[in-house]
Amino acid sequence: MKTYSFSVKTSKNSELIDITKTIENFVLRSSKTSGICLIYSPHTTTGIIINEAYDADVAFDINNFLNGLVPKQLDYRHSEGNSNAHIKSSIIGNSRIIPYSNDKLNLGQWEGVFLCEFDGPRQRNIILTFL
Amino acid sequence: MKTYSFSVKTSKNSELIDITKTIENFVLRSSKTSGICLIYSPHTTTGIIINEAYDADVAFDINNFLNGLVPKQLDYRHSEGNSNAHIKSSIIGNSRIIPYSNDKLNLGQWEGVFLCEFDGPRQRNIILTFL
Amino acid sequence: MKTYSFSVKTSKNSELIDITKTIENFVLRSSKTSGICLIYSPHTTTGIIINEAYDADVAFDINNFLNGLVPKQLDYRHSEGNSNAHIKSSIIGNSRIIPYSNDKLNLGQWEGVFLCEFDGPRQRNIILTFL
Repeated sequence: MKTYSFSVKTSKNSELIDITKTIENFVLRSSKTSGICLIYSPHTTTGIIINEAYDADVAFDINNFLNGLVPKQLDYRHSEGNSNAHIKSSIIGNSRIIPYSNDKLNLGQWEGVFLCEFDGPRQRNIILTFL
Repeated sequence: MKTYSFSVKTSKNSELIDITKTIENFVLRSSKTSGICLIYSPHTTTGIIINEAYDADVAFDINNFLNGLVPKQLDYRHSEGNSNAHIKSSIIGNSRIIPYSNDKLNLGQWEGVFLCEFDGPRQRNIILTFL
Repeated sequence: MKTYSFSVKTSKNSELIDITKTIENFVLRSSKTSGICLIYSPHTTTGIIINEAYDADVAFDINNFLNGLVPKQLDYRHSEGNSNAHIKSSIIGNSRIIPYSNDKLNLGQWEGVFLCEFDGPRQRNIILTFL
């Protein structure tokens, strides 16, 4: 098992940031050639998804849909004004797992890994675990 | 690899129950000091999430939002009257994975693990696998 | 670690297909008697869920609800007309993990594993990793 972490600086209140290349570099460094890779974001207002990284409009549409699905203002109890971000994080999930082999993530042709910022801009951490 | 299970008694039709401390006790018992922990709920009408455990209003807001998103009554075919619970379970997912090190879950500052009851009250089981 | 893959031919634009038996056959073949099984779909418009496999109406209701939640036509930017499928895939997630022991998936009594097709019909691949 190998563990790494890196940070990502987000620039908007909500956005999807492609972190595929950074993860692929850690796969090469991890010394194991095959296994599974856990991508974990230890925050309560972020998510991790795997989806199309080729056309940036897909990430735009996903983010935009979630903004419509979970309104910023609603009859929320939590007083910090970011319940929408906590809810999006719960729906999307704050981790994903990908198998890898021959030093490469087994991503499909169009797939990339995205950090979903739901309450930014902030500095965020990602923990990678290779097993 | 070590596997443990424990049960949780829920008291409402839908609620989020903080199970962080129970899991942390099993981390200590697991004899491995670092790895990943799979938290799995073998039920079709529950979910597992990782989110803010500090202000209980966050869990309230998440549960309340899901109740609004997936109505109990709709044009469902399943005759048991709990399709909303099956749908919530599919959206949230019935497992989460957390890396751990030095006998501690690598949770963020405000993070906790919750069992989401969507069709209670019932007795529920959680399976923990440490790798 | 053992890795296998298999393909599934879907027949509708959106549907849930029970793949439990295929996975159980690979559990038997995997030579390890206990561990965790990662079920990963390397596509941007599919999902994997674990839910009730006994009454087919549950899968019908889940699929039908998602069709209502994420409309095919909306103010999407992505020009291929399948943003709804990418969004559903992000909400559901394209993998699930199940612990297994004594050569059996630790599924609950009514649980099965489903491939969710959101942009079919197509040929889809599933990657299984046993750890």
